Amino acid sequence: MCRWLAYFGSPIRLEEMLVKRDRSLIDQSLHARQGATTTNGDGFGVGWYEEGEIPRVYRSTHPAWNDRNLRELAAGISSPLFLAHIRASTGTAIQETNTHPFRFGRWLWMHNGLIRDFQRVKRELVLAIDDSLFPNIEGTTDSEVMFYLALTFGLEDEPVGAVERMVGFVEEIGRKHGVELPIQMTVAATDGGSIWSFRYSSEGDSRSLYFSTRMDDLKALHPELVELGAFSDETRVIVSEPLGDLPGAWNEVPEAHVGIVQPGEDELRPFAPRR
Amino acid sequence: MCRWLAYFGSPIRLEEMLVKRDRSLIDQSLHARQGATTTNGDGFGVGWYEEGEIPRVYRSTHPAWNDRNLRELAAGISSPLFLAHIRASTGTAIQETNTHPFRFGRWLWMHNGLIRDFQRVKRELVLAIDDSLFPNIEGTTDSEVMFYLALTFGLEDEPVGAVERMVGFVEEIGRKHGVELPIQMTVAATDGGSIWSFRYSSEGDSRSLYFSTRMDDLKALHPELVELGAFSDETRVIVSEPLGDLPGAWNEVPEAHVGIVQPGEDELRPFAPRR
Amino acid sequence: MCRWLAYFGSPIRLEEMLVKRDRSLIDQSLHARQGATTTNGDGFGVGWYEEGEIPRVYRSTHPAWNDRNLRELAAGISSPLFLAHIRASTGTAIQETNTHPFRFGRWLWMHNGLIRDFQRVKRELVLAIDDSLFPNIEGTTDSEVMFYLALTFGLEDEPVGAVERMVGFVEEIGRKHGVELPIQMTVAATDGGSIWSFRYSSEGDSRSLYFSTRMDDLKALHPELVELGAFSDETRVIVSEPLGDLPGAWNEVPEAHVGIVQPGEDELRPFAPRR
Amino acid sequence: MCRWLAYFGSPIRLEEMLVKRDRSLIDQSLHARQGATTTNGDGFGVGWYEEGEIPRVYRSTHPAWNDRNLRELAAGISSPLFLAHIRASTGTAIQETNTHPFRFGRWLWMHNGLIRDFQRVKRELVLAIDDSLFPNIEGTTDSEVMFYLALTFGLEDEPVGAVERMVGFVEEIGRKHGVELPIQMTVAATDGGSIWSFRYSSEGDSRSLYFSTRMDDLKALHPELVELGAFSDETRVIVSEPLGDLPGAWNEVPEAHVGIVQPGEDELRPFAPRR
Repeated sequence: MCRWLAYFGSPIRLEEMLVKRDRSLIDQSLHARQGATTTNGDGFGVGWYEEGEIPRVYRSTHPAWNDRNLRELAAGISSPLFLAHIRASTGTAIQETNTHPFRFGRWLWMHNGLIRDFQRVKRELVLAIDDSLFPNIEGTTDSEVMFYLALTFGLEDEPVGAVERMVGFVEEIGRKHGVELPIQMTVAATDGGSIWSFRYSSEGDSRSLYFSTRMDDLKALHPELVELGAFSDETRVIVSEPLGDLPGAWNEVPEAHVGIVQPGEDELRPFAPRR
Repeated sequence: MCRWLAYFGSPIRLEEMLVKRDRSLIDQSLHARQGATTTNGDGFGVGWYEEGEIPRVYRSTHPAWNDRNLRELAAGISSPLFLAHIRASTGTAIQETNTHPFRFGRWLWMHNGLIRDFQRVKRELVLAIDDSLFPNIEGTTDSEVMFYLALTFGLEDEPVGAVERMVGFVEEIGRKHGVELPIQMTVAATDGGSIWSFRYSSEGDSRSLYFSTRMDDLKALHPELVELGAFSDETRVIVSEPLGDLPGAWNEVPEAHVGIVQPGEDELRPFAPRR
Repeated sequence: MCRWLAYFGSPIRLEEMLVKRDRSLIDQSLHARQGATTTNGDGFGVGWYEEGEIPRVYRSTHPAWNDRNLRELAAGISSPLFLAHIRASTGTAIQETNTHPFRFGRWLWMHNGLIRDFQRVKRELVLAIDDSLFPNIEGTTDSEVMFYLALTFGLEDEPVGAVERMVGFVEEIGRKHGVELPIQMTVAATDGGSIWSFRYSSEGDSRSLYFSTRMDDLKALHPELVELGAFSDETRVIVSEPLGDLPGAWNEVPEAHVGIVQPGEDELRPFAPRR
Repeated sequence: MCRWLAYFGSPIRLEEMLVKRDRSLIDQSLHARQGATTTNGDGFGVGWYEEGEIPRVYRSTHPAWNDRNLRELAAGISSPLFLAHIRASTGTAIQETNTHPFRFGRWLWMHNGLIRDFQRVKRELVLAIDDSLFPNIEGTTDSEVMFYLALTFGLEDEPVGAVERMVGFVEEIGRKHGVELPIQMTVAATDGGSIWSFRYSSEGDSRSLYFSTRMDDLKALHPELVELGAFSDETRVIVSEPLGDLPGAWNEVPEAHVGIVQPGEDELRPFAPRR
């Protein structure tokens, strides 16, 4: 099990989300409250965008709580859109290439959950990945296979549909191999312009996922919090678990839904696997 | 806070104590039950003896639970006497040279606890280390400074007295700098022939420490446990917390005591700092 | 490019071959003389056997020359049969799962060389790996794919034939994709009883490979070297480059040959890819 | 032996100096031309400034040539002033706290060379470090001790004088212990506003050090090189060895001199140890 965070909004130092909150992602690496495991110490990764650039990624196999470079970078780097992830391995090796977020071109992808009985279905899933994409696979996780399947199914052109097809395919192959509940996931995907956040599981009981309240509403709710002034009205954070307990600040993504954070109005829509 | 284990007895694969028990040291790295912290993920070390050799040490900065090399070595190495330690840093850097056990000649040393306000008293403590020993210091922990102070005060000749003088000195220097409760410790020291295990703290409320029951008594108590036959009557294990809940198997080291595991009769004696 | 060493004979401390020779494997990590690169600093691995056990493997992503744990283990572990490898990556990630030797059951495998244009042919090669073996692949190197192809083609039953079929297959697929000279290799494979050492390349100009002279002949040649008495007559070492310059001690494996070191008479035979 | 680079000028991506040149610092980690060792694979560090901030530092124990995070950061981070260092250990442990540059407040420090017989003189040197600075020492290198001695002797107020006193003191203590040629160094120190670069050794035969030609002169010399237009006239690079072989671009720092790169006119002055 893992924890993740996606940020969209006014450019901020990464440390504002990763280090400085009461329940920052670094804190969650040692003391997750809502996860299947309390310790997420099997590596850390962050991917961030700057204007007009492909995203940069820093990944480490050390626990986030004791990685000094992470604190340095989080203090030194500002970005208007970044994804960060702390890992608790479900069995695959602890190595940078198994650490989220994964990158392809302008896209980043990260995942909390698992493909059940992955070793049994891996071969068939991997075979469905497009020829031209295949050589880009660097690690051995189910999460990266999901990413390349989504790319194969059109992630770059139609993100929601592609992820729906990926999930449908994983469920089909899993069931063919006798796996009753093939997939459990919260996923964030981004092209640097929008963020798509998915919450879904075959059993209809997915890992937790929250999005922050619209910043203008939150400012109206808490006029006393002057520090909120630093965030633009479009700022939005999506997280595995809330970064604090400010009343009205956090909203659960409903089961089997996808949230789209984008310039202009954000969206929240039902999500259903497709075949 | 940390957890540690010292083994003395019939030669066994390290994995018997580090991996295979219900509450093995690796399990404790993720789920300590009695410690100040539940996660001990800031590194791992093991030192082991073979006949007539100086001890060998394997140390890693990765969490014990996800270190593959540790599992390989624990399966491949047998020893009649070994010390193992999982670390939860109290602030000093995560690096192999800060990972226990520390070695000097034939001696190994490991520690759970801390010297309070170490940064304030460090210089004065370090200055008291013998000139000839000084260049051997490789890391930056309070634990290593305690080891070299104990060596300075005669650890090799009179182990209990030397540790009593070391603790007395640390308390004196601490109090001189206004630190009310200067030291908290459980320590294991060994020369490959005997193991000295110390439990002491300035506040009289030391970290937990247990020793296993004499193996012949334990066999008499549990004749149904045929696997105990593999252990010689002299086998003894000292641990920060019990490796299981077998009734009658584990005994607390009393506050301010030192236990000596050695060929022949073992000993348990009061321990008092000296000046 | 990489360097490797395989040892068969009287049980010795690993350090005798890895550390203590003038041109030990650790020395070669910094100063290879005959390789395509002088520095082999992209990781290190050693696999060793003890009686009746599956082999144990220690792998590190640090350069061999500065890995302290390696020196400790090499001093602490004795074995009658071991493989050791220092890596210079030809492009794939620096991670333990890409570090040789690779293990499957009782088998170990290590490789110096490359499959040319590996990214172009990888998919087709991977697809040929047996279903039941597929989930065991942990890394992303050409060397590991070669191992699992050899296992698919019967390595455990008929080692030479299986490697000949593996090479034939790699050449066929490579040429189908327009790669003129698909493979370059020296390989060591062992089941803990014998060691098979292959030297082959599509261009007929393979990386260097040497085997040591029969120990009884070498003792006769150098009666003044009393230290040779420590080695049984059956002792044999196979290396990418000689560990020293003792006259008469080292013999080149001929181009396109396989050497078999085994109890009883050793063998040296021509090697030819098969389809 | 090590190699280092200091950059002062128009803000640029770190990769321009660390990755993209023919003889970039990463290239030098594998193939140094002028150093005492050709391989500088014992770690890497870079410290960089942004406006009004304390410097940030990224340090790794992996060889620079195979560190992926380094390439990501070098591509993602821009700075008008940065120091970068590749390490070849002269004996002390490979750990992040022994990796340059070292930081204290707004200051960074890096070093190529050594204090001879450091273990013999270490205690006496360390004792001379100011009480208030002592707890900041994190590693075990001679280079860090030189930094804290220089700080003790007034680096923040009078940089050249402080380094002259530090060197004088190291030479005095060394000679007292019978070390004929106590110090060999090229050092860069910066407060984020200016860079001081020192070249000195007791034997009068110091490690190589170069500074780039004034950018306006270089542009006049090579009007055909349009890419030079990207650099302000004040841009200056100081390096252990030239990043290329552009005629007129690189000038050796004379033996026993200090160069000061600063806003306005730069300076080059004789350097002499003081007592």
